[in-house]
Amino acid sequence: MFITFEGIDGSGKSTQARLLAETLREAGHEVILTREPGGSPGAEEIRRLVLEGDPDRWSAETEILLFTAARRDHLERTIEPALAAGKVVISDRFADSTRMYQGLSRGDLRPTVDRLHQMMIGREPDLTFLIDIDPEVGLSRAKGRNGHEERFEDMGLDMQRQMRAGFLALAAEFRLRFHVIDGARAAEAVATDIAAMALSALAGPDYD
Amino acid sequence: MFITFEGIDGSGKSTQARLLAETLREAGHEVILTREPGGSPGAEEIRRLVLEGDPDRWSAETEILLFTAARRDHLERTIEPALAAGKVVISDRFADSTRMYQGLSRGDLRPTVDRLHQMMIGREPDLTFLIDIDPEVGLSRAKGRNGHEERFEDMGLDMQRQMRAGFLALAAEFRLRFHVIDGARAAEAVATDIAAMALSALAGPDYD
Repeated sequence: MFITFEGIDGSGKSTQARLLAETLREAGHEVILTREPGGSPGAEEIRRLVLEGDPDRWSAETEILLFTAARRDHLERTIEPALAAGKVVISDRFADSTRMYQGLSRGDLRPTVDRLHQMMIGREPDLTFLIDIDPEVGLSRAKGRNGHEERFEDMGLDMQRQMRAGFLALAAEFRLRFHVIDGARAAEAVATDIAAMALSALAGPDYD
Repeated sequence: MFITFEGIDGSGKSTQARLLAETLREAGHEVILTREPGGSPGAEEIRRLVLEGDPDRWSAETEILLFTAARRDHLERTIEPALAAGKVVISDRFADSTRMYQGLSRGDLRPTVDRLHQMMIGREPDLTFLIDIDPEVGLSRAKGRNGHEERFEDMGLDMQRQMRAGFLALAAEFRLRFHVIDGARAAEAVATDIAAMALSALAGPDYD
């Protein structure tokens, strides 16, 4: 089973991805915890190329191609081999983030994102948790972290608001696999909800 | 006018591209001499990512995406602005090299290369010079050079033979813009032929 976490910066999705990996391991599953952009040695190199430096360094079109190249490498080297071995793969971000960030900042590019995904990636998650949070809370959390990857955080609160709306629209578009989780609560409470849904999906007769 | 040079390693195309740039400048044209992969600061970084390291580092699919990302950056930052300013752009390799190297080593990927080109690049050269040379001569010339970018040269003579055949097939496919040049002669003789064709095309009533 392939599970992804999505949400705006500071939503707590990385923490939740890690907590779910721990819970599923305790329940006896073999789990690979990974992230995008990155998730394989080659994709991590592409990640550095995209996220460091001047925000205007790449056009939206070039950025989509670089993210798709990184995702292809991540898929080939990390995700597909693990799924083929019967493991659970949990990824902090996947294609929905590209649909959102690139598709939203340049709405006319959503068809390009979709065609590239269909041609070069194909794989969709079985289950996606959208950790939904007020953008002001998310931004203050994100700014509290230190790091060089401020590429997207620099875009500010207004962009974060559009991102949140964009993720919620994606959740409506792909409602069979998306679960929208209220991320404003304590991390433990959020984690409990997510674990229940994931364990149910893993145990359920509907999952093949 | 957008002019490209193609050919196997050691064919002398880089020398010929430089000589044509000099000749056209002497004839009063503003000329931008560029190359692929690379040709803009961002594309040069992607070039390093693709060409250095283990030849199996990237799958054919990921490599095509990285080359397309580099080409998009090269097109946006270097080629299109120069053409818009009325300059002549001469590029040492362009999309035909990708069609050849990736399409030939994994023939089933040629449709993918073409679809990516159509979606993300669009631009074709007005004139392409294929410097045709015996692969044994080309390989010995290429191996005589020092450098870290031995990614393709390492593939050996048999691959070079396939490449030559592949380039000749492309010249037949796009025969309106391709000129096949015998590269076995002295560089000056080759340069004279190329300059005559390029100057004729630049002066000719058929060129818009």
